Amino acid sequence: MIKRNAIYAQSGGVTAVINATACGVIETARRHRNHIGKVLAGRDGIIGVLTEDLIDTSRETPAAIRALRHTPAGAFGSCRYKLKGLEDNRAQYERLIDVFKAHNVGYFFYNGGNDSADTALKVSQISETLGYPVHCIGIPKTVDNDLVGTDNCPGFGSVAKYVAVSIREAGFDVASMARTSTKVFVLEVMGRHAGWITAACGLATEREGDAPHILLFPEITFDPEKFLARVEQVVKQHGYCAIGVSEGLRGADGKFLSESGLKDAFGHAQLGGVAPLIANLVKNKLGYKYHWAVADYLQRSARHIASKTDVEQAYAVGKAAVELAIKGRNAVMPVIVRKSNRPYKWAIGVAELKDIANREKKLPLDFISDDGFHITAKCRRYLAPLIQGEDPPPYKNGLPAYVKLKNAAVKKKLRDEFKI
Amino acid sequence: MIKRNAIYAQSGGVTAVINATACGVIETARRHRNHIGKVLAGRDGIIGVLTEDLIDTSRETPAAIRALRHTPAGAFGSCRYKLKGLEDNRAQYERLIDVFKAHNVGYFFYNGGNDSADTALKVSQISETLGYPVHCIGIPKTVDNDLVGTDNCPGFGSVAKYVAVSIREAGFDVASMARTSTKVFVLEVMGRHAGWITAACGLATEREGDAPHILLFPEITFDPEKFLARVEQVVKQHGYCAIGVSEGLRGADGKFLSESGLKDAFGHAQLGGVAPLIANLVKNKLGYKYHWAVADYLQRSARHIASKTDVEQAYAVGKAAVELAIKGRNAVMPVIVRKSNRPYKWAIGVAELKDIANREKKLPLDFISDDGFHITAKCRRYLAPLIQGEDPPPYKNGLPAYVKLKNAAVKKKLRDEFKI
Repeated sequence: MIKRNAIYAQSGGVTAVINATACGVIETARRHRNHIGKVLAGRDGIIGVLTEDLIDTSRETPAAIRALRHTPAGAFGSCRYKLKGLEDNRAQYERLIDVFKAHNVGYFFYNGGNDSADTALKVSQISETLGYPVHCIGIPKTVDNDLVGTDNCPGFGSVAKYVAVSIREAGFDVASMARTSTKVFVLEVMGRHAGWITAACGLATEREGDAPHILLFPEITFDPEKFLARVEQVVKQHGYCAIGVSEGLRGADGKFLSESGLKDAFGHAQLGGVAPLIANLVKNKLGYKYHWAVADYLQRSARHIASKTDVEQAYAVGKAAVELAIKGRNAVMPVIVRKSNRPYKWAIGVAELKDIANREKKLPLDFISDDGFHITAKCRRYLAPLIQGEDPPPYKNGLPAYVKLKNAAVKKKLRDEFKI
Repeated sequence: MIKRNAIYAQSGGVTAVINATACGVIETARRHRNHIGKVLAGRDGIIGVLTEDLIDTSRETPAAIRALRHTPAGAFGSCRYKLKGLEDNRAQYERLIDVFKAHNVGYFFYNGGNDSADTALKVSQISETLGYPVHCIGIPKTVDNDLVGTDNCPGFGSVAKYVAVSIREAGFDVASMARTSTKVFVLEVMGRHAGWITAACGLATEREGDAPHILLFPEITFDPEKFLARVEQVVKQHGYCAIGVSEGLRGADGKFLSESGLKDAFGHAQLGGVAPLIANLVKNKLGYKYHWAVADYLQRSARHIASKTDVEQAYAVGKAAVELAIKGRNAVMPVIVRKSNRPYKWAIGVAELKDIANREKKLPLDFISDDGFHITAKCRRYLAPLIQGEDPPPYKNGLPAYVKLKNAAVKKKLRDEFKI
């Protein structure tokens, strides 16, 4: 068997555990040196592959690679760069094959969402066409949890845990001050097109009256009157109200509330921030003192409070990707299969990239309560296992000891510069 | 010795560890039953004492009291309610003494900042005047770290750890996407009048190039030109720029930037949020893609990432308060005394309330670097020990298992209703 190298690339928004997947890929490849030579990584994702800007991960020590498991964000860099269709932009795909040939690459591991699954699929197709076969394996990653074919997506469980922990903690804070001070607290969370993360806030409500009391999903058109009535009712009943709101909340006109025309002192349009809008509405209509928070990147980079289940699954899909490639599989993705809820059991399965590419898993409507303001028991059964367990990073000087890799460049072999 | 009861009350904004102090007070009082009867707590702070709305902590199990040590926010409720001067509002102070008499209270533990130290002092004075002596002990608490007479304030160390961890994690996130996406990240932190929390963000910068790259202190008038020049320089050098900004940042006119006239789509003034303003300025002037986060209450309630040093000190001042009272001390506060930096050693000392009341400890100017954008080595030496160690709460179902007390009411004994 001729030993060929692998290329691993991270794609799209990073997560608290995508490096755990990288760790799984590299450690597993290192255990199969008879099959796989070096694992090269695209610097800043697929852009690094296109421009032949590759990182030699064999230059990293075992300890550094091991430390990826507890380090958030993308250790080799990532990018939002979607390759166009094969017909429109054949040159980009051919370029990828040129780079693969130049570096004796026979395995392509692409770690991302549904766009990336599509890219990996097309690379596999064109590699066949051009007579340079490459084993293309997609590896799931997205905080949005919107990939089909897998029970859940690595990255999501840790965001879910972060938002549930955070709104519980802030809820305790507000409850203790509510009699004379802040009565309404609004936490804005990610998930522009699907309410998975918003739903996860609801896990903190384990008993009647627990925060959060109201969730505002991107799936449910925002109805200010109905919302305000509920806020008033909750404050009267519990003394305070904690609200989780999706950044993707939309009004009756179908537009994002966060794009509803906030202007700063200089007249510049102010982008983002639905939490302050919601809080301001409450203040103006009900007169309650409020506070709001926007977690933004904190939620998806919070490796310190990552879900152990999520870390284990992120590692497992990386490991499985390499094992699938070695077995000769192509155009597939290792996925997470739920075996049982109580106790929670899962295993790694395999899905075809063609069944995953460019599709989107929506939050089922029966995961949202009838009034539209909270999650159902069915949703809770699905979400609860994903935040189980803690896996704290090592600390040094009171701070998480995250690794920064050397990221040594591989010498370029192609003559042509490729412009993105 | 006649056994008398104690009243404990929490004051002002709550913290991740103020309940650890309550735990220290109650557990220590329970170990001295020959001196102290019951510990009663003011429901929602001093308001509960004035209105004779008291909680009987003797109804709580040892396990529940122990769990206070790992539970954030104020378990008995807190309030922002400052008693006025003795001359202006003698009736309120006399009312406190009436409540103390009615419940055989000989010890008053007031857990708060410099306002609370002032109140505790005045209660001690009037109790003497009225011939009903009460041992009044202030106990330090404030995330703002602005109490004089103590090396640091319980509550601050945990916020400091939270903001340093968070900006490190978000920094990793931005670094990995910066080539093609977000280049500037802004985290807004608390500390309206002093830059202690802003400074703590700087602990995450352990090596050249580490996030955060720029800190915007409330002590330094915001200079947009100088700031933008620095942002541009940092982005050119490191590829991205992470910024920590105080909610209390002021412009050349002396006003808070967050009050600079943001209006929403309905023309309503939009309060708070200096992070989006800063981010927007960067976007408009330099064109960099940005993200911003406002941590708000998340930072002061984040018991899950509390500093172990902070938890231990919070407990220790509660314990010491009871021991001082038993020794017959009055109008004092247990404080934290730093014995050495390396290794960090601290002990509990005693300060007179008269030396603490209504005074404020500012961030020393030699804690801010000459350019005004970061902390000095001296500042780092002061701050570093305060975030040392982790003390995670127990978890259940993937979430921190925080306690909610029974908070059983003590039967009222006074005939008069007291209106706040």
